[in-house]
Amino acid sequence: MAWARIAEPEDPIVLDLIARLGICEALESVLLHGSTSSSAVARRVARRAQGLDLVRDQQIARSLGVDVLTPADDQWPTMLDDLPAPPWCLWVRGSLPDSSAARPAIAVVGARAATGYGMHIAAEWSGALSARGSCIVSGAALGIDAAAHRGALSGDGGTVAVLACGIDRAYPAAHSDLIDQIARSGAVVTETPPGTAPLRMRFLSRNRLIAALSHGTVVVEAALRSGALRTARVAASLTRPVAVVPGPVTSAASAGCHQLARDNAAVLVTDPDEVLDLIAPVGQFTAQDKRSPDRARDLLDPLARRVWDGMPVRASTEVESICRVAGLAPGEVVIALAELEAAGLAERRLDGWGRTPNARGRA
Amino acid sequence: MAWARIAEPEDPIVLDLIARLGICEALESVLLHGSTSSSAVARRVARRAQGLDLVRDQQIARSLGVDVLTPADDQWPTMLDDLPAPPWCLWVRGSLPDSSAARPAIAVVGARAATGYGMHIAAEWSGALSARGSCIVSGAALGIDAAAHRGALSGDGGTVAVLACGIDRAYPAAHSDLIDQIARSGAVVTETPPGTAPLRMRFLSRNRLIAALSHGTVVVEAALRSGALRTARVAASLTRPVAVVPGPVTSAASAGCHQLARDNAAVLVTDPDEVLDLIAPVGQFTAQDKRSPDRARDLLDPLARRVWDGMPVRASTEVESICRVAGLAPGEVVIALAELEAAGLAERRLDGWGRTPNARGRA
Repeated sequence: MAWARIAEPEDPIVLDLIARLGICEALESVLLHGSTSSSAVARRVARRAQGLDLVRDQQIARSLGVDVLTPADDQWPTMLDDLPAPPWCLWVRGSLPDSSAARPAIAVVGARAATGYGMHIAAEWSGALSARGSCIVSGAALGIDAAAHRGALSGDGGTVAVLACGIDRAYPAAHSDLIDQIARSGAVVTETPPGTAPLRMRFLSRNRLIAALSHGTVVVEAALRSGALRTARVAASLTRPVAVVPGPVTSAASAGCHQLARDNAAVLVTDPDEVLDLIAPVGQFTAQDKRSPDRARDLLDPLARRVWDGMPVRASTEVESICRVAGLAPGEVVIALAELEAAGLAERRLDGWGRTPNARGRA
Repeated sequence: MAWARIAEPEDPIVLDLIARLGICEALESVLLHGSTSSSAVARRVARRAQGLDLVRDQQIARSLGVDVLTPADDQWPTMLDDLPAPPWCLWVRGSLPDSSAARPAIAVVGARAATGYGMHIAAEWSGALSARGSCIVSGAALGIDAAAHRGALSGDGGTVAVLACGIDRAYPAAHSDLIDQIARSGAVVTETPPGTAPLRMRFLSRNRLIAALSHGTVVVEAALRSGALRTARVAASLTRPVAVVPGPVTSAASAGCHQLARDNAAVLVTDPDEVLDLIAPVGQFTAQDKRSPDRARDLLDPLARRVWDGMPVRASTEVESICRVAGLAPGEVVIALAELEAAGLAERRLDGWGRTPNARGRA
């Protein structure tokens, strides 16, 4: 709690000091010798340490009805420990929903300057994922974040907002009611102490927590230099899956998503099933291939269906043989085969025609 | 020319017969013995051969002002020979524009049921590619094809329409004027003889010619079972690049494009430069990275710019060192580093901060 008051969470010089001296010894060193140190950083930390009052901080937490978790607590979300610089501690309003590989926590993030399309997708998908038990993690910001939380509130997976300011503040102010709702149905968390203002650099630090508290991250809309891309980068650095939603190439709000896909830093997803398929482990859930059984069968015309039925399951066959089995003229069979080929259900082989291997049993 | 009259271009049984007997001997065999053969296919071919009149076909071609090319001709597009079943011959109105690796022919294809978005992209990109000397190849169909040809007509790379019917027909009829324009600025070609009607299976056969006549293929919009996906599959089977344009996931007209990208069967592209970068060989052209020099520099605020300038080109450095070099306070440097990191220009390392390798020399 003391370090949370006196140092930014990712300050490399402070992290280095702690790595060398240990967390308590480093604090002692800064408090005792900081103000007279020759190091500008030590003097800065010491200046901030002057107002330190941990007893008052704990009173504030109690009066706000807020839990303060440290890595020593049982309820500490251990997913955070995968970060190179985990938070010093976590202020929590509400309670963090349980998540697991089978009911993954999913970060749904994106641009504040979102389009109607992005807001629609964020809300719809978060609702669908929440209905299947996934907890939606986001940043309570304008745009995609808010749409994601609102969508999640309609499901029962819970939702978590990670703030870039103190837990006693609502930022943006317009989301004060939304943040209250999130605290009731899940949790509002922050790593910065009460009273802290939302500075630009804290948003970037905050984004790493969104990624770390989730089993995977979906970027719905992001411009080329959006902060949401930091969330995606952190998720990737933690070897957690990153998904991006495509959009029109004419929309600057989708350009960052497309760039991540082009860089092979993220997987393109087009519906919530594909998100779960990516983030939930193999066997837990499998997105139905869109060109799959029922659809393919429903869409075949009767002629093609008859030809498909007349083909052996694995072996190749010749047009004349299909004619015999299906009772059709060669011209009809050739046309139907062309249709089956276009549908990915049949293929030409050196020794005739066959059902395509991955289509077996589909139609 | 005789085979073009009497057999569909990809008829596997005819191809097999020719492979066994040779092209002339197979023809002779069918003409002499086909009608009494025990094979249904041979009887069918023989039936179609009854109307065969090559002298009249050549008169028709002359009267239409059309060239008939065979693989033996100098002007034969040798790119077609990469196909497992090249056309028997090619009817050509106009003249095929020269293309080369440096001025590639590019197939721009997609759904007939295109959206306004797809039509806009097809026309704009084809115009931009044509302005750089690329020939745009497509199928003169409604929707994306027509938009691609129309866009290409505004440039000087020429455009080629591959028809699924006889060269004497305009299909669709609404595109009669467009097809005339294409013939004047490039070429209209088909592998089916004059008088042939556009049957469904011929569209699928035709699509393989669009792919084979191009150095690469761009699918602008395609539903999950669109014929444009066959063009993409053929291009891939010829190891020529395939690009897809993303669109809203709510648009069925983009679903086939997204599926190709998800299957790693195509590369996502977001502008014509990226298309050329994919299809023109390395060194001929390089799409400017969108997060590139001028943009990144222009968008940095003065503080971040000063910190960037204060960082060594390759080595890592510490915040305090940057403070000295840039003459800034540690707090300012930390904020600026966060911004540089978000912009992909700086990175945290074990031994401090550094410029990200691919950003060197950019800002």
